[in-house]
Amino acid sequence: MPPSDLLFSPISPLDRSLEPALQALIDTKTKPVGSLGDLEALALQIGLIQQTTTPALQHPHLVVFAGDHGIARSGVSAYPQDVTWQMVANYLAGGAAVNVFARQNGLTLRVVDAGVNHTFEAHPELVDAKLGMGTANFLEAPAMPVETARAGLQRGARLVRELGESGCNVIGFGEMGIGNTTSAAALMSRLLDIPPEFCVGRGTGVDEAGVAFKAEVVQQALHLHAEATEPLEILAALGGFEIVQMAGAMLEAASRRMIVLVDGFIATSAMLAAHAFEPAVREYAVFCHRSEETGHRLMLERLGATPLIDLGLRLGEGTGCALAYPLLRSSVAFLNEMASFERAGVSSRQDGGAA
Amino acid sequence: MPPSDLLFSPISPLDRSLEPALQALIDTKTKPVGSLGDLEALALQIGLIQQTTTPALQHPHLVVFAGDHGIARSGVSAYPQDVTWQMVANYLAGGAAVNVFARQNGLTLRVVDAGVNHTFEAHPELVDAKLGMGTANFLEAPAMPVETARAGLQRGARLVRELGESGCNVIGFGEMGIGNTTSAAALMSRLLDIPPEFCVGRGTGVDEAGVAFKAEVVQQALHLHAEATEPLEILAALGGFEIVQMAGAMLEAASRRMIVLVDGFIATSAMLAAHAFEPAVREYAVFCHRSEETGHRLMLERLGATPLIDLGLRLGEGTGCALAYPLLRSSVAFLNEMASFERAGVSSRQDGGAA
Repeated sequence: MPPSDLLFSPISPLDRSLEPALQALIDTKTKPVGSLGDLEALALQIGLIQQTTTPALQHPHLVVFAGDHGIARSGVSAYPQDVTWQMVANYLAGGAAVNVFARQNGLTLRVVDAGVNHTFEAHPELVDAKLGMGTANFLEAPAMPVETARAGLQRGARLVRELGESGCNVIGFGEMGIGNTTSAAALMSRLLDIPPEFCVGRGTGVDEAGVAFKAEVVQQALHLHAEATEPLEILAALGGFEIVQMAGAMLEAASRRMIVLVDGFIATSAMLAAHAFEPAVREYAVFCHRSEETGHRLMLERLGATPLIDLGLRLGEGTGCALAYPLLRSSVAFLNEMASFERAGVSSRQDGGAA
Repeated sequence: MPPSDLLFSPISPLDRSLEPALQALIDTKTKPVGSLGDLEALALQIGLIQQTTTPALQHPHLVVFAGDHGIARSGVSAYPQDVTWQMVANYLAGGAAVNVFARQNGLTLRVVDAGVNHTFEAHPELVDAKLGMGTANFLEAPAMPVETARAGLQRGARLVRELGESGCNVIGFGEMGIGNTTSAAALMSRLLDIPPEFCVGRGTGVDEAGVAFKAEVVQQALHLHAEATEPLEILAALGGFEIVQMAGAMLEAASRRMIVLVDGFIATSAMLAAHAFEPAVREYAVFCHRSEETGHRLMLERLGATPLIDLGLRLGEGTGCALAYPLLRSSVAFLNEMASFERAGVSSRQDGGAA
């Protein structure tokens, strides 16, 4: 295996030299200091990512990576595997939740066949990035060879490079793949060294016995793949085609100083993998929502992330990104459009205090 | 005092006969049952309010009620009273946070002079509903005569009637008024029978000593106005011109089966007063956000409300309504636009389970 620094473009930690100017701009808007809460932190982050006091969100995209999972054959999901390709067809027909929300909020949707167990006809919104007809069952073998994981990182990166070159500077990452909460839970358990029972959850809706079974499956998989300790090996052993491509895409987006919108449990598992390769990727990430899926809260805590919304969603697809996106627009808009106390002729505090 | 049922139009509790049809529609969309979390409850509520399985949000408005408070002279705010009229001028010039967010999310802004201590020139976006040049200091006298409180309820109702007749079916309620967190805390304490120290908070940014002082002020006011126990008397004794007009406006909106968007601490105090007059008003309310202002959490708990967003905002103005509004659009859009499992040809659960 080559050293991991050949796997992705270099990512710069955020240059914070503009922070005082951005913070002063935020603090002199006609509102009590700090009163826009998390939107202020978001405006600061976006300003620092774009290295400007007048940030702009351009050609926002939402990319849904779809892949099938061998582990689905072990009965970890409430839905049959065919639902993966059927939902891809639903995205292409415009009928899924993510279509509705992306349309509403002005994000361009792209659907990526990262490795669905189905042969699709060509479609203008479908990106063919197939790594196979679904992963192997990681209870029997690594989900994919290390070479395939490497190819998946690069394929995800290529997609982001193309979007970046077309002028996009903000990308939301979503996914579809029956069985993928089990893969994400296994990645989480290994990457964060957290016992499986804290990582598994109901997924699309299994019952308590189903959750216990998922924990057992993850425990067995971790035992079988005990030798997988480097990020690339871990992704190969326990990941999914859509997860590995998302990880590569997120790394490339950060290297290009694009804003990375992270959706729920599966997308955050891809961010965990990306973070294992290069912690600086975290600084480009906006965590859009806290999922109802059990392990997500703990993932977010470990990443020090405060998600924008918390609506009890557990759908995936990038729906959390699409729903939270107007809040990104709001944070940029207040920075660019609100009047200052001085310009508006509004008196400041009686005590001259700063907070 | 006439009986309170003469103060506002009758409000019907929600007719829930359409609930099974709406729930079936929500549950057959191409997503795991319940996976859109709070957006599903919101879609159901809006469908029931509008009594249709194809709800629509029409001519959304955001109304900012502004008023001055005699209690501001007792030093309860970090800002001078002039900021109230200066911020009204800022709204009319388009430079405040609520302007930015309402513009972004397609809400028409109206600013109401409910009783600001300033004489404004006529402006097409300013509604003259002045009840006086600010309330009396409720440490010395009732904030306003009962007759004025009654007139305020009616004035707020009239505004909503006009908006309703012009085709609007969803209104956000915001406010501006230096000193009004103290008034709202006093109303909360009396209406919910909660000790003042759990009701007061930092407002626009007073320090710990300032918060303790506010609790003392509220305690004194409650003592002075111990005889005010009916909703109208309580509003007159402890309220503000903007709060009483908001309460009347909310009651009228519910009576017309319009959606009532409740902003933060002050707007929720108006909802508490409206609720004291007629509990059914609650069923038409969407609580847009949880404010950083201390008492708001407890207010929401008492109303059994789960707010849509929780971003640490403490600005008022209706900013929480404007920021949350896209989530209302999303809830209506998924109901109207998502495909069903059957229509999309997507397989349902393997076990045929319903959850």
